[in-house]
Amino acid sequence: MIGAKTGFVSFVSAGPGDPDLLTIKAARLLAQADVVLFDDLASGPVLSHVGPQTELVAVGKRAGRASPKQHHVSRLLVDHALTGARVVRLKSGDAGVFGRLEEEITALTAAGIAFEIVPGVPSACAAAAAAGIPLTRRLTARRVQFITGADVTGDLPQAMNWAALADATATTVVFMGKRTFPALATALMDHGLSPDTPALLAQSVGHANQTLTRSTIAALAAQLALDTGDQPALILYGPLAEE
Amino acid sequence: MIGAKTGFVSFVSAGPGDPDLLTIKAARLLAQADVVLFDDLASGPVLSHVGPQTELVAVGKRAGRASPKQHHVSRLLVDHALTGARVVRLKSGDAGVFGRLEEEITALTAAGIAFEIVPGVPSACAAAAAAGIPLTRRLTARRVQFITGADVTGDLPQAMNWAALADATATTVVFMGKRTFPALATALMDHGLSPDTPALLAQSVGHANQTLTRSTIAALAAQLALDTGDQPALILYGPLAEE
Repeated sequence: MIGAKTGFVSFVSAGPGDPDLLTIKAARLLAQADVVLFDDLASGPVLSHVGPQTELVAVGKRAGRASPKQHHVSRLLVDHALTGARVVRLKSGDAGVFGRLEEEITALTAAGIAFEIVPGVPSACAAAAAAGIPLTRRLTARRVQFITGADVTGDLPQAMNWAALADATATTVVFMGKRTFPALATALMDHGLSPDTPALLAQSVGHANQTLTRSTIAALAAQLALDTGDQPALILYGPLAEE
Repeated sequence: MIGAKTGFVSFVSAGPGDPDLLTIKAARLLAQADVVLFDDLASGPVLSHVGPQTELVAVGKRAGRASPKQHHVSRLLVDHALTGARVVRLKSGDAGVFGRLEEEITALTAAGIAFEIVPGVPSACAAAAAAGIPLTRRLTARRVQFITGADVTGDLPQAMNWAALADATATTVVFMGKRTFPALATALMDHGLSPDTPALLAQSVGHANQTLTRSTIAALAAQLALDTGDQPALILYGPLAEE
């Protein structure tokens, strides 16, 4: 809880999409909220927890896409809070992981509005759990890292840390990286990562149409070069053996 | 759900310790379990969700410490499952993150026992949320990584990826690293990370005695060189500005 003037915003992590993977606190805040602002990615079954009196506001932003509307979302959030409403800003996965919280926090702070962040289940953890894979292993995967495969333009971000990413002893989870994975995989192999490094494509994690596909980075890159679907996807690579 | 013969084990993520940060699924599985095997770190308030008929088995392992008992824990897990019981193996934080799942999964698989992994809120996400810090930021922290500060001997692990860790544009969360942080910080500075890099010491995250202390890597290293307390702690460093 930071700052104080009027209204209150809870940034609530929606988890991967399965309403069973909401936290108890998140479910209670949704049930008690006056207003819930949600993105496309966080919508659907999770909203079954919302109370009958709650106003639902779809802000229509999709994670990882260029978003000319970020300023508009921040404005909406401030305006609703200034009415004195209990506002929930729903974010998919864990709100602090690729949730672009910082712009909205800056707007709230500038307006003197108090907020809290309610952590949740990152989609990366849900994808690994669904596949039966621990993200870390004592001997072979002592580091886990989450990166984004797309900057605001939708392309692979510039100035990536290749020594960090082309590391066969870490588990890496790529968010919003389906379209750019062929380029990412090529760069990883150029930086010494084996083409045979295990990879997992996890699509629509936590939703009824979830699919998990095991592959290698080279084979997955070839597959995705031909893929034009736009299901939300995570890609995991590294020491992903089932035990 | 992997494999099938008799009994069933749910690896259930307990989250950081606050029972409000359990998932709805985790709370239900605890309420319905015949047996719950738990470590010290995952105990306490979270067990308030356990039903009256449930047998509680403390396996007494502490995350991050050398554990001569890992084989014993795996054996207990298999033995309980073979009775046909609904077994919950409770793990603090997210089970897949430094939960040493792989040894227990190997034992279950060898015994032909089916299991599921129920993801949860990583302590790292809870610590960042409590401090009002997003783990990623669009321009300044495009990568987040979780590492352990202690190997099985309790020392700093060998063969760490310094290019990955001494990166001012990533947020790093060090698990079980309070005792070794002075050595880690020295190595990070030797590899070019500024002594003034923001750091956060988060102790007893998700518990009533939670404390959050902002510092820099150099100052925190100096402080921890004199600290003999054994509260569970996470250390975050990187671009940790409040907005």
